[in-house]
Amino acid sequence: MKNEEKIFNLKERISLREVFTTYENLAEREFLFCGWIRNIRNSKNITFIELNDGSYLKSAQVVLIPENVENYNEIAELNIGASVMLLGKIVLTPNAKQPFEIAVNKIAISGKSTPDYPLQNKRHSMEFLRDIAHLRARTNTFSAVFRVRSVVAMSIHRFFYNHGFIYLNTPIITAADCEGAGEMFRVTTMEDTTKDVKDDFFGKKTSLTVSGQLAAETFSMAFSNVYTFGPTFRAENSHTTKHAAEFWMVEPEMAFCDLESDMVIAEEMIKQVIADVINDCPAELEFFNEFIDKGLLERLQHVLSSDFEKITYTDAVELLKKHNDKFVYKVDWGTDLQTEHERFLTEQIFKKPVFVTDYPKEIKAFYMKVNDDNKTVRAVDMLVPGIGELIGGSQREDNLERLEKRMDELGLDKKDYEWYLDTRRYGSCVHSGFGLGFERMIMYVTGMENIRDVIPFPRTPGNCLY
Amino acid sequence: MKNEEKIFNLKERISLREVFTTYENLAEREFLFCGWIRNIRNSKNITFIELNDGSYLKSAQVVLIPENVENYNEIAELNIGASVMLLGKIVLTPNAKQPFEIAVNKIAISGKSTPDYPLQNKRHSMEFLRDIAHLRARTNTFSAVFRVRSVVAMSIHRFFYNHGFIYLNTPIITAADCEGAGEMFRVTTMEDTTKDVKDDFFGKKTSLTVSGQLAAETFSMAFSNVYTFGPTFRAENSHTTKHAAEFWMVEPEMAFCDLESDMVIAEEMIKQVIADVINDCPAELEFFNEFIDKGLLERLQHVLSSDFEKITYTDAVELLKKHNDKFVYKVDWGTDLQTEHERFLTEQIFKKPVFVTDYPKEIKAFYMKVNDDNKTVRAVDMLVPGIGELIGGSQREDNLERLEKRMDELGLDKKDYEWYLDTRRYGSCVHSGFGLGFERMIMYVTGMENIRDVIPFPRTPGNCLY
Repeated sequence: MKNEEKIFNLKERISLREVFTTYENLAEREFLFCGWIRNIRNSKNITFIELNDGSYLKSAQVVLIPENVENYNEIAELNIGASVMLLGKIVLTPNAKQPFEIAVNKIAISGKSTPDYPLQNKRHSMEFLRDIAHLRARTNTFSAVFRVRSVVAMSIHRFFYNHGFIYLNTPIITAADCEGAGEMFRVTTMEDTTKDVKDDFFGKKTSLTVSGQLAAETFSMAFSNVYTFGPTFRAENSHTTKHAAEFWMVEPEMAFCDLESDMVIAEEMIKQVIADVINDCPAELEFFNEFIDKGLLERLQHVLSSDFEKITYTDAVELLKKHNDKFVYKVDWGTDLQTEHERFLTEQIFKKPVFVTDYPKEIKAFYMKVNDDNKTVRAVDMLVPGIGELIGGSQREDNLERLEKRMDELGLDKKDYEWYLDTRRYGSCVHSGFGLGFERMIMYVTGMENIRDVIPFPRTPGNCLY
Repeated sequence: MKNEEKIFNLKERISLREVFTTYENLAEREFLFCGWIRNIRNSKNITFIELNDGSYLKSAQVVLIPENVENYNEIAELNIGASVMLLGKIVLTPNAKQPFEIAVNKIAISGKSTPDYPLQNKRHSMEFLRDIAHLRARTNTFSAVFRVRSVVAMSIHRFFYNHGFIYLNTPIITAADCEGAGEMFRVTTMEDTTKDVKDDFFGKKTSLTVSGQLAAETFSMAFSNVYTFGPTFRAENSHTTKHAAEFWMVEPEMAFCDLESDMVIAEEMIKQVIADVINDCPAELEFFNEFIDKGLLERLQHVLSSDFEKITYTDAVELLKKHNDKFVYKVDWGTDLQTEHERFLTEQIFKKPVFVTDYPKEIKAFYMKVNDDNKTVRAVDMLVPGIGELIGGSQREDNLERLEKRMDELGLDKKDYEWYLDTRRYGSCVHSGFGLGFERMIMYVTGMENIRDVIPFPRTPGNCLY
């Protein structure tokens, strides 16, 4: 370790991101590099290392020759996965595939690896990588996925910050049940949950939140514009590629805002996120477009340049019914739209993103504003080419009597919602919001098809690694 | 509602934040304002409304006279808490307390309030407001608290983004127990938890996370620099003003980073957050400084301009022992520092923030790097005037054998940590990180003394509103 420490303190470190983006100005200069060996090839006279430090998708080519490196033989024997710290000179290589390489003058082993390191230099199945979630971020695919995930999170925070929204952490442990629906995880400190709940930590039955919306509504009545961005949970025994038991949701809520303005914000947000990913992650998008989803870049550019369409559910059903021969589930007024219908609308009929509004009240949540027809509510889904629904939102019922009536119809116990109803008692106003499944957005901008592959440590029925 | 809707579509809305910060350029111009009545005083000939829309701490003075407002009498009868939408002209009032007022030309009631609205125009106790957490953000104090909370969150994200860190969502539901300590909430879908855990949702016992650190360490070995920022939980039956069952933590983790660099990042981050709050929230800080904590601004400015001190635990104990007559708990080598000692160090001895390093290994966690003396570990606490410990961190034990030995000494079952130990098997490196309790930071920059008052809907033993 002595040698390592000496090198460690020798020079300012440079990240490979900086080198890859500014190498032209760095020619012949020496820097300290730290990273992991993605690949190593050698002979007696020369060794090539692909070095990756996670700051950038690509690895840099590092070249060692025995004359310059005193511990050449020791380094040449390193396995994939080992970490090194090295002093190296940046040499421009305009005729090679990579525009520069790093010529090593001094190198120290930070941590060795073994020949049975799970991430050998070959294609691994997604299933195999899921079982080593603690290592898979060291592959190109997952390095790209989680970098994009980070950039999208920042983009969302920046978007709302720039629009004057207050970021709000709604509670994870809750005694409320947002929609009177959805299976919930129980949170308890009791050894035996059959005993009296009065002895539980909170003195009552508590669960993991399924949505921060109702709490966010109360804060929107103080700040006008608020949003949540946090984890939500579903204890559903669902084994699809789209559902996880733990996922993150973005939920803005705006006072003095009707459904029209709600759609404006939703469209602006989606476009801003896509623009930021295109701008911040060009190498990643190129990678996804080549190896994961050939049409990705074109689809994202198309969304970015489209004015989103609007259509009511009733009109959409009329359009879709003409194509009922193409669908597994036949469309009829009153039934919810399936993914096949959503995709047909946005991909075949409109060929761009579309907002579908005013759904039948029976298939939507109790808090949505009922239209004058008393049949539909001011709900909206944003459908996008490639996946269908990306965002769901609504204008909320702001009239106390009508909201209470709707809760009675649905058999909800108003006593549990007195706090929520207060927002309609004291200074109620037209207000709206929407929810974006964060992972759904990541899948959309990466082309990844399984939600398990866009969450660092995914939780699904029967699966909770670590 | 018709009248309201007409007004609603009439003009572009302006937020009071924009008016308060640019009113000089807005004189005599008419805008649409939406907000809530914080106070209302009237006579036959004139009515004054304090209007607040949550975009800014302060309320604006709105003036109505019967000649200009056809529904004058209806408006004059409104209660505190009601919401209105109005068209009004900005009139500069250079000689008044507020530099402008809004002269109303048209106004509509959005939602009424009642005379028993809980937030009447008087001082309410913090305890009273805690019981109406869904309304308290409509007070000046909590409007300021939660705006600062939002600004600090953004500041933290921006800091790490600008430093090239990847934001990582570590899991909330976990099968691991970070430090082999800390009481945890169980997460379950079983009605009867005395039955076989194989039938539970994940097929094993799961809990709410107490820290994302171990998972973050695995990702730091892929990206070099990562951070988490998410909720963590403690099922401790603790009834202090500093502890909540649910709180948010910021946990950066850096590869190829020793304790010295760890401290550099921690100091930079704290200074950046304070600078951002001073810059983004001048009205809020002024409010806190006047009504909550008289020395707040001076203390924050002092931290910002100080070079943080460094001292080892051993040296700190020597200094403190000389003052043992002043302490409830006497200091001696081997015992943990109490808040009284921490505050004495940073407030009396150094008179500025101080990093205390190299604590006895017995009082710190298993993953910290043991020093050559085999008695102390490379731990660090950042102590700041006013509260004591703000941040705790460490350089991690990167040597597999030494880490395993330490786990054996502490009786930890290595089988449960094989995934974590892989980080030391494959490409281990010097790495470090720290944890910042987000609420602790909010308390520090606002002067608020109870953690229940910096969390939108706080959770403590026996308390889970909604």
